[in-house]
This record gives sequence, C-alpha cells and structure tokens, in this order.
Amino acid sequence: MRATVIHAPHDIRVEEVPDPAIRQPTDAVVRVLRACICGSDLWAYRGESARQPGQRIGHEFLGVVEETGAGVGGFAVGDLVVAPFVWSDGTCAYCADGLTTSCPEGGFWGSVGSDGGQGEAVRVPYADGTLVKLPAAAASDGRLLTALLALSDVLGTGHHAALGAGVTKGSTVAVVGDGAVGLCGVLAARRLGAERIIALGRHTARTDIARRFGATDVVAERGEAALAAVRELTRGEGAHSVIEAVGTEQSMRTALDIVRDGGAIGYVGVPHGSASGVDLGVMFDRNIALRGGVAPVRTYIPELLPDVLDGTIDPSPVFDLSIGLDEVPAGYRAMDGRTALKVLITP
Amino acid sequence: MRATVIHAPHDIRVEEVPDPAIRQPTDAVVRVLRACICGSDLWAYRGESARQPGQRIGHEFLGVVEETGAGVGGFAVGDLVVAPFVWSDGTCAYCADGLTTSCPEGGFWGSVGSDGGQGEAVRVPYADGTLVKLPAAAASDGRLLTALLALSDVLGTGHHAALGAGVTKGSTVAVVGDGAVGLCGVLAARRLGAERIIALGRHTARTDIARRFGATDVVAERGEAALAAVRELTRGEGAHSVIEAVGTEQSMRTALDIVRDGGAIGYVGVPHGSASGVDLGVMFDRNIALRGGVAPVRTYIPELLPDVLDGTIDPSPVFDLSIGLDEVPAGYRAMDGRTALKVLITP
Repeated sequence: MRATVIHAPHDIRVEEVPDPAIRQPTDAVVRVLRACICGSDLWAYRGESARQPGQRIGHEFLGVVEETGAGVGGFAVGDLVVAPFVWSDGTCAYCADGLTTSCPEGGFWGSVGSDGGQGEAVRVPYADGTLVKLPAAAASDGRLLTALLALSDVLGTGHHAALGAGVTKGSTVAVVGDGAVGLCGVLAARRLGAERIIALGRHTARTDIARRFGATDVVAERGEAALAAVRELTRGEGAHSVIEAVGTEQSMRTALDIVRDGGAIGYVGVPHGSASGVDLGVMFDRNIALRGGVAPVRTYIPELLPDVLDGTIDPSPVFDLSIGLDEVPAGYRAMDGRTALKVLITP
Repeated sequence: MRATVIHAPHDIRVEEVPDPAIRQPTDAVVRVLRACICGSDLWAYRGESARQPGQRIGHEFLGVVEETGAGVGGFAVGDLVVAPFVWSDGTCAYCADGLTTSCPEGGFWGSVGSDGGQGEAVRVPYADGTLVKLPAAAASDGRLLTALLALSDVLGTGHHAALGAGVTKGSTVAVVGDGAVGLCGVLAARRLGAERIIALGRHTARTDIARRFGATDVVAERGEAALAAVRELTRGEGAHSVIEAVGTEQSMRTALDIVRDGGAIGYVGVPHGSASGVDLGVMFDRNIALRGGVAPVRTYIPELLPDVLDGTIDPSPVFDLSIGLDEVPAGYRAMDGRTALKVLITP
C-alpha cells in the first residue's frame, strides 16, 4: 500500500510500504477513508520532536474494517469506524477509568513498527478497545464524514481542554490558540454551556470560524494589550476558564495572565520548548488550577458522536484544505506556512 | 502592648508596640488568647522571604473582641472569635465566590502597617468579613481552644490541599510533608472519606500523629525507595490524590512521582526556591492536575468548625510545644531546629 513516511525534518514522502496484516488476534485492519494532518505532526516535520528515519506519520483517521483477528468481537468487515489518536486495550484499570491514554498496552499511530494514519490502511491493535463504530450511512455523506474525522483528535482534545478549564453552564471562557484544537475548544465550551467565549487570535479566517463555533468575542491584540482587552470583557477579573491549545511558553504565560483568580487553565497544547511558562508562585497566590494533558479522546467519542451525527456541533470547518494522499507533502508545507488551518486527506 | 517584631533574619524580639486602635468603622480589636508559629514564618526568620526591619509577624490567632468600629454589625465586645490568616471584606466578587484570599481589600497579618498574630492584641480590618464567632464556652476548654486555633490556618490549608487533590470517599491519598499542614491534610482527607492515606515521613513523632489523624500507611523511605514503596501500596499505579504540603522543588517532584496517571496534586506548600519541580511534559503525558494555592480558610471555617467543636476532628496534637509570649524567640529556634512541630503561644 501507499503511506506517508518521514525520513528527516522537512522530508516527508508518500511511498510504497508493506500492506498491513493481522498480527495479533485482537488486531483489525482498517482501510482509510479520511485522514488529516495535525499541528503536532509539524513538530516532527520541523525536527522539533525526534523521529527515526522511515517512521510512518499521521494519527487521525476513519475508515472501513477490512479484516479482523479471531479475537475481535465488536467489529465486522465492512463496519465504518473512527480511531482515536492512540490505541488502548479497553480492559485495563486506566481504560476502565476512561484514561485510555495511560493504557499500558496503548500506543501512538506512527510509532516505530506501527502504521500511521496518513496512508491507505492501518493495522489497529486492540481493535475492540480502540475503534468506535459509526453509522454506515455516514460513509456517503462527505461533509459528515469530515466532521466525524474530528472525533479522532481535535474535537475530543478541545473537549478535554474545556473540561480541564472547568467550563460549565454560564462560564466565561477564553481560548488561547486559533488552530483546529483551539477552535474545537470553542465548540466544546459552547456545547458545555459557556455563556461568554473569548477567542484570542489575529487571523480573521480563523476567528471567523471561532465566531461560527460560538465565540462571543474576539481579541486580536497580543501581549499586554490582549490582557487588557480580556480584562475589559470580564469586569477586570479575567476568565474563569482558559483553554491553552498551543503548548509554548508564551501561550501558557498568556493563559496565566488572563485567567481569573480561582480559575482553571485546561491545557492541551503539547508542551514544547525548554520553558513551560508555568509560574507556580503566581498560580499559588491566585489559586489557579492547571488541568489537562493528552486527551483520552477514545473515552469522549461516545459522548460527542451523537451531537456530531445530529448536527448539534459541526467541527468540519476546521478542515480548510482537502488533498489526496500523493499531495501530503504539499499539505505539510501548507500547514507549516500557515496557508492551511488543517489539511484533510482522502487517500 | 507587647508583640513579636522581626528586625532581621534570626532576630525576632518581643517588644512594646503601640496598642491597636480602631481606625476604620469596619475594624475590630481582638485580644489574643491563642496564637502560634507557622512553618512559613520560618522563611522570614531564615531570610528566605524578605521583611522590612520592624515588621510584626504571626498570622494565626483567636481571641476576644475588645472593641468594635461603628460599622461592625456581626460582633460585640466579649465575643470569642477566630481569624483566618488573611483578612477580607466579605462583600467583593471574590469573597462571594469563597476566594477570600483574592479579596482586593484583603491583607496578611504582619504586613507593613498591620498587627501580627504573635502579640497581645490585633486590629482586625473588615471584622465582619474576616472573623468567625466561636461558642463562648470554648474559652474555658484549653484543649478545644487549641484545636480551634488550627482553623486560622493549618486545618483549612490541609482541607484546601485535600480538595485540590480531589479527595473523595474511597480515595487513595498520599501526603508529602510531615509538618502541621501535611498532618492536617491527613485529617482533612480522612474527613472527606479517603480510604487509604499514605503519609510520607521519617520522624516517628510526626508519623505517629499522622496515624492518629487517619494515615493507614507510613512511608519512611526517600527518593526512589519512597516511590517504590508508594507504588507497592497502590497496585503499581500511585495515589489518585497527592497533597503537597512543603513547597520545595524536591517535594513537588516527589508528588509528581507518586501521583497516579489522571490524578491530582493539591499543593499548599508556599513555593520557595528558584525551581518549582513542576514538569509540564510529565504532567501532560500523564494527565496530572495541579490545584491549590493559598487557602481561602475563611471560607472553610464554617464547614470545619462544627466538626472541631463536636470532636469529630481534633487537630490540637499538631501543637507540641506551648509557650508564653516572651518565649517566642525560643519558639522560633525550636521550630527552626525541628525540635518542635508547631509552637502554641498563650500571650
């Protein structure tokens, strides 16, 4: 089959690789209908996170079950399924608690020896624990299929951030980060009943999506001016809940600046760079909580799926460029150059 | 009156100072019956936190109302009252939310221009917002009076840590720090229904109190061995809830080591030292929440008071040395040298 392989920073190729096959009875093979490129893939692309030459890449996909191992009970050939961005066994103590990302048997698509999502097919370990079935009818609805793909990462990650930030009915929420996750954080916050949602961002194409997703206010300023603008919108106090969806020192500092005393930062931006931006002294004095991390999206899919299916929420606008598998290298360049927000791949 | 004054590191004196008097209509003057020395007072004593020469010190006290301003409605002369370790107006948005430590009119006993708790009397700003009335009968019960003094800081701070750590019925909790706050964290965790409480500590006098307060296990090891011991007690996973009651880089690292994936660290140790011990990358991968800070104990007093009055919880054993006001400098030396856990002062 053909799949995306990373050979070195800025050297992404689509090439012939071995067809996936059942290795364990709990495996399934899924033919990919939709995949995409994640902001975090760019760190491998830019050399900011290490990859071995020849690793696969891509961790978001949905598709059709093509083959199942003898131990797979929950899926049959032909089922339409979505995969979360990590696999998990579904049976351990962590999976039972919903923390599928801490499953000792779990793993990340594209890690050494595993398939990545940006290819024609994927061998899925622990299929029963990992995959979630989608209605067959969705396969013929292109817009819906794209929306459902967001369940594999960005929608669940935005939801995790909103939960971490303590968003409840009537909350005031500020969102740092205008990427797909930040925008899904807006969507998730609105879904959880936030009354006021302040999106920080300067790219009108993105802040327009934020407004469409439920942002009541957009702050285009940066630094001190952004802080002043958020304060003015929040009786001088800041937002109860802040979603941090970037992962840089600067974004965490901004989150700390604009959160209200006693509030919470829900952080889902993968920390990168040498400094975290976390100032424990400030957090202590102001009773700021920090909650989040790698989102256990497998746990959230059953809750979010009905709302995507019935159109209550539609994350599909985060995909603003659609390409075929052979164009994946160009897709990386587009996201790296910020000419695309999130790239959809139809193999 | 006589009160404790800090002139320089290691230079604590009890000397004559002006009698407190009503300055604002919302003030009260409280004659101190019980005060104490806090672990955090030692940082000023050791020069680790700056003080202006001549500042008062001490932020925990209870006593009898001696005088009230014209605007004080909730208290009368002769009332027995306890003060939380910060004053607060009781009327602002933060006070309404229970975050009295963020009250814009609030302040800390012993800050420049204010009285400290380690003296004969204290001018209390915003008496109606700050003080909590105690039953008059308690004044004649020395043991109870000492237990009630813990409401001014350590008991409420331990409770804040337990809440931050997400302690609920059936929780497994580990407590880092065997000082008065850590021990009160044990007490608070048991009160909230924790099933297993692991106290880390090597001083048997302290761990004996921990057991008396509800610790089911004591881990005397340090470093890697402590981690292994906690893992062995928790199916290899760590504790859902960790109370961090020290505030050093090492204690925060220990807390992160022993917390279960998906768990929470409730931190109330005032951060000191240049490094925080917070590793955001580890927290991200393992979904560790960090919640806590300066405890809004004023908010907790009404909830905790009935349990202290009826003996459901008795924090009085944390006070292991009782002195008069003139002996306060010796009390600091005893706590600094760890020959005393917490020093009770009866002016």
